[in-house]
Formats: sequence, structure tokens, C-alpha cells
Amino acid sequence: MIVGFEVREDLAKTVLTFTCHGQRGKARLGTIRTAHGEFETPVFMPVGTQATIKSVLPGDVWDTGSKIILSNAYHLYLRPGAEAVKAAGGLHKFMNWKGSTLTDSGGFQVMSLGANVKVTDEGARFRSHIDGREVFFTPEVSVKAQVDIGADIIMCFDQCVPYPVSKETAREAMVRTTEWAERAKSVPVPSSQALFGIVQGSVWTDLRKESALSLARLDFPGYAIGGLAVGEPKEEFYEIVRFTVDYLPEDKPRYLMGVGHPVDLIEGALCGVDMFDCVLPTRNARHGRVFTFGGGLNIRNQRFASDYGPLEEGCDCLSCREFSRAYIRHLMVAGETLASTLLTIHNLRFFQRLMERIRESILDGTAGRLRERLLEVYPFKET
Amino acid sequence: MIVGFEVREDLAKTVLTFTCHGQRGKARLGTIRTAHGEFETPVFMPVGTQATIKSVLPGDVWDTGSKIILSNAYHLYLRPGAEAVKAAGGLHKFMNWKGSTLTDSGGFQVMSLGANVKVTDEGARFRSHIDGREVFFTPEVSVKAQVDIGADIIMCFDQCVPYPVSKETAREAMVRTTEWAERAKSVPVPSSQALFGIVQGSVWTDLRKESALSLARLDFPGYAIGGLAVGEPKEEFYEIVRFTVDYLPEDKPRYLMGVGHPVDLIEGALCGVDMFDCVLPTRNARHGRVFTFGGGLNIRNQRFASDYGPLEEGCDCLSCREFSRAYIRHLMVAGETLASTLLTIHNLRFFQRLMERIRESILDGTAGRLRERLLEVYPFKET
Repeated sequence: MIVGFEVREDLAKTVLTFTCHGQRGKARLGTIRTAHGEFETPVFMPVGTQATIKSVLPGDVWDTGSKIILSNAYHLYLRPGAEAVKAAGGLHKFMNWKGSTLTDSGGFQVMSLGANVKVTDEGARFRSHIDGREVFFTPEVSVKAQVDIGADIIMCFDQCVPYPVSKETAREAMVRTTEWAERAKSVPVPSSQALFGIVQGSVWTDLRKESALSLARLDFPGYAIGGLAVGEPKEEFYEIVRFTVDYLPEDKPRYLMGVGHPVDLIEGALCGVDMFDCVLPTRNARHGRVFTFGGGLNIRNQRFASDYGPLEEGCDCLSCREFSRAYIRHLMVAGETLASTLLTIHNLRFFQRLMERIRESILDGTAGRLRERLLEVYPFKET
Repeated sequence: MIVGFEVREDLAKTVLTFTCHGQRGKARLGTIRTAHGEFETPVFMPVGTQATIKSVLPGDVWDTGSKIILSNAYHLYLRPGAEAVKAAGGLHKFMNWKGSTLTDSGGFQVMSLGANVKVTDEGARFRSHIDGREVFFTPEVSVKAQVDIGADIIMCFDQCVPYPVSKETAREAMVRTTEWAERAKSVPVPSSQALFGIVQGSVWTDLRKESALSLARLDFPGYAIGGLAVGEPKEEFYEIVRFTVDYLPEDKPRYLMGVGHPVDLIEGALCGVDMFDCVLPTRNARHGRVFTFGGGLNIRNQRFASDYGPLEEGCDCLSCREFSRAYIRHLMVAGETLASTLLTIHNLRFFQRLMERIRESILDGTAGRLRERLLEVYPFKET
């Protein structure tokens, strides 16, 4: 293990600090500190799009070992409105979350609108999916909204492209994303918040390199790799992550957006990624799918009807301590939302335990073996 | 306040005891002790039909001050099956509820099936709403299922009639209910469980009297008044309760089923009722309706969008301590189930605080004034 480094706080323009304790190969272990506490990296951030981790009280989310959660500026801007969150005292107070928070900018959501959005150099024009009113989202609007919302880490508004896409379209979006990042940087942000840049460029290494280098010149306190996990083949995905990381400043956190699958998390960590977020544990929970270190389960399966053991033997989450597979299956089959609550709590705890194992495996040099084991039980099909 | 009385445990055929600490007019204050703890009466029991108080973890239900909850034998018999609950170690263990439990027998649910059920002297024949299989529910089947499920208090299978109904039909159902109660009594029940009888007779005092007296002869450890709150006028409802209570043994708990509205609770308590259950706090919560001592609120109301105060000033529930009206409104409008969770917790706490006030008002002789105040803010329209 090679020796890590520390960013001196007095050099930082935000209260956010990233301390790297050590590195093995490209993989690294660190601590990020924000105005709302600190957490170990590589870190997994549960997704609470609408200022709530669906169906779980924030105190119970905290107890899964989650120290930072993600919300979405696009969703909160449309409803209840960024000013409403600001008036509540900011996102943390609004949703009663005592840890750190990150808001995504809305770039990914705008891409998801497909033909229903018009993107120009100025910004993205679309109709709200809630009330149909016209919205003009720009880099400035997005940052201002995120300043109002008040998350510890906020993201530049980027232009995502779907997969597959022509290289020309990918280049245009990448160049525009950099221009937008410059504009985002010009918006005043309180020192309690850290604005991260987002690398784009689809699956082309030269575009990714150009994006990473030009963003790095803007000197953000952290960098994200965006526009991946949108349907490209796994090998291409890993290759781009591995390639891109090398062009990102090594003293800043690196965040792989929307990722992911248990195997993706260890692969990403081995590439030198520090932060991840994904809806997988929470969304799968609502469909009855359970993560365990022995592989995925579907709680609806008839065989669990008379299984009075916990979701996962050895798991220390609330659901495993206090409820049986048979009971949670009953709730699921009966359409009771408490099933989602209990499965979400377990899946989040699984992801946090997985991150603990990933961090340990980096420390003791067994990450390769952990990756093999995860690949065996999670061979890239739905759990 | 006149002096109460105590049932000597050695005389009881079940571990259930009812101690009356005192009586003012007809209203009384008592303690019921079961194999799973004790609680003060008059008591309100939240409804957890399918072995779950919808959307709330049992620990959070407990923290609302609820000491006994109700489940439904009809629902649990159909799914997951009484044997499945038994195999889990009984209802308490199955759902991880540390307090007392009561299961209703299914009489009310069978009535709700309307034309889809055939009731004979032997029992009720219908098709399961879950998988269409034919079910023949009898007094014996219902008690056996409830013994398997294992609630502290279980109910005789009764024949409910809708309102309005002919006196002849009401009489037949009442007589049958008594015959069924005799058959239910012949089923062996462990001493850890107490089987209550249910008075029927619709809105006719002579039928109610006959029903109460013949059930009393069967010497149950508790008696319920069933078949009310099914659409009859309020005054008729209160008259029947007031009348019926006088024919029930005074040393046994009296339970008014499916009731009720805040005003009904104080009215019932003033009539000498000791136990109540109702879906009102939980069901209303899921529709955004909030109970407070100042009256009902609908959290969807636009005026709450910028209201950062608690659901109810002075309430000590989790939701009021940690979340604002604005946040809960946001969750509700955004379709997030956490809204149901938070509103259910608050409404349950409201009902338990209401019962505390009712008990205090009986003690200090101010129940009449409390009834007037409740009637002012809950004038029998939807909250």
C-alpha cells in the first residue's frame, strides 16, 4: 500500500476536504468531510430523488450505515421548488437528514425526456412532467437551485447523451458540458457547498480525455464521470472508467454517477473511483428483490412462505434482526408497503456492508478475490 | 367517583384479567392484563388487518402509546394461512409486536361480501377474494384459526347484518350469532387466550337485550357490541350502545367494535365501553387527513406548502418532533409512501392522546366538557 496524502483545508475553496489514506494500484481509501460530517471512501450514496429514500424514515436510513444520500435538483426544482426547500432551512432540515447530501443537477433527467426536450447552447427547454408548465433549465438555474436546496455537494448541469449515439453528437454534448461547467462556476456558491464537474464523452476515449482535462483546468473540488451505465456493454463501460480516471486530478474525489451493480462497485473502486450512487438497492427492494452475499433472492418466491429465518444470515440490519423472510414475503404478497420499507432497509445495509468489504479488501490486498466472488453470485443478470 | 372492583385471577379461566379502578356514572377506568402486558381502559386499538399497521414499523406503532392492536382472522386465514402464522410462533412473533393483540373473527368481513356469501346455520360459504377458492367459514373454523394465530383476545364468529335490515332478518342473525357463540365456546382455547362473545341485534333494543343476556349466560371473559357503525343514524347508534351496556356483566371488559370517530370514543366511554378499534386514524392518514385537537386538516391543502411547523403544535409524536407540515405535504403530493408513514404515526398518537384525555376526564369529572369540545371540532363530517 502506498502512502496517501491530505488536502490542506486552507487551500480549499469549500469546506469539503478529501483525505486519501492510501492507495493500492489505482484503488484508494479516503475520507471526505463536509459541513455535515465525514464518511469513508469508496462510498455508496443511496438515492432519495424527492428528498426521501422511498418508504424509509431518515433515522432508519442512517442506521444502515449510510452517511451521505443523493437527491435530485431537477425533481426538487419542479416540486416543491428550490425556494420551498430553502425556506425550510435547506435539504437537510427539510427532510431531517443528519448526514451529508449531494444533489444531481438534472442532466440525466433531461436526457431521459428524450424528444420532449430542446437542448441549445443556452440550456434545456421542456415541459414539467407534473403540471405541463414550460421550464428553461440552464447551468445557472441549476446551480442557483442547488444553492437554494443546500446540499453539501452539488453538480454542474451536464448534457448526457444516450447509448448508442454518433461520435459527433457525443462530442457536441461534451463540449457543451464543459462550456456549461464554466458558466456553472461563475455562479456564487457558499463555501459550505462544493460544486463538482461532470465528465462526458460517451464511449470515446479521446472525448473523455478532452472532457476530463478541460474540466480539471476549471479546478473543481471534485469530479464525476457521467453518461455511463446507460446501456453500453460492460467491458466498454469499465474501459472508459479506467481510462478517464487517469485524467482526473488525483487529490480530488472521483464520483461515478448512477453506478451500480455490486460488481460495478468493486470494479469502479479498483479503477480509483471514490463515490457511487444507484437506485438498485432501493428500487429492487420495492420489487421484492433482496441482495445478499450469497446472491440475489426474490422474496415473492413460494419457498420463503415457510422460511422463518432472516433475509440474510449474519446481517445486522433492522429487518434481519426483527423480521423473517416468511413475514416479509407475506407483506409483499399482500401488497403492504411495509415490505418495501423492510427490504429497502436490508438492501441499503447490504450495500453499506459491501462497501465496508470493498474498503477492507483494498486495505488488505484482496480486492481481486472479492471481485471474483461477487461476479460469481451477481453475474450481471437481474437479482 | 365510586369504588372499582377487581376480578380475582384464580377465578378466571384465562390469563386475561380486567380490573376496574373506579366508575363515574356509567364510565369506568380499568386495566386489562393479558399474556403480553397490560393497558389502561378505555383503550383504543389500532387496526393492523393483515398483521401490519399499514406503512409503520411495529416499534414506531408502540411508540405512539398503542399497547394492543387488532388483526383480522378472516384475512390471515386466507393469507398467509393460520397455520403459517402458527408456524412462525404466533401473531406476536410473526409481526414482531411486543404488546397485546386481538383478532376479529371475520363476521364483519363476511357481511361485507354481500351477495357473494351464503350464510346457513352451519356457517358462511364464499369464495376467497384472493384466489377464488371456496371457503367454508364456521364458528369452529374461526376459533381454531384464531387459536393458531394466537392473539391474546379472540372473537366469536358472528353474523353481522347491514343497515337498514328487517327486524326478522336481524333477529335470525342475532339468534344464530348466539348459537354460533355456544359452538365457539366448545372449541378448546389455551388459557393464554380469551374468547369474547359478540352482541348483535341491529337497532332493536329487545333484540340487543336478548342477545346480551343469552351471551352473558355463556360466561365469556369479555363482550363486544357488534353490528353498529354500519350506517345507522348517530343517535340510534348511541342509544343502542347505552342500552346494551346495561345488560352486559359489569366485571367483564366491553368492546365496541369498529368505533370510532373521536366523538364516538368519548360517547362510548361515557356509556361504559372499555375497548374500541377503528381504521379511522390509519386510513385517513393514507388520504392525507390529519387529526388534531383543533380539528381535522388535509395535508394536501396548498396553505401547508410553506408551513414549517409540526402537524400539531404540542404533539410529542415522531412526525411532529422531526418533520414539518411542508415536508409531509411535499411527500403526499409527490406520491411518496413516507407521507402515509408519518401521518399514520401522528394520527395514532393523536388517538392515544385522546384516550389519555378521555381517561383523565372520567377521573376528574370533566368528560361532559371534553365531549362538547370534541363535538365542536369534529362535528361528524369527514376530517
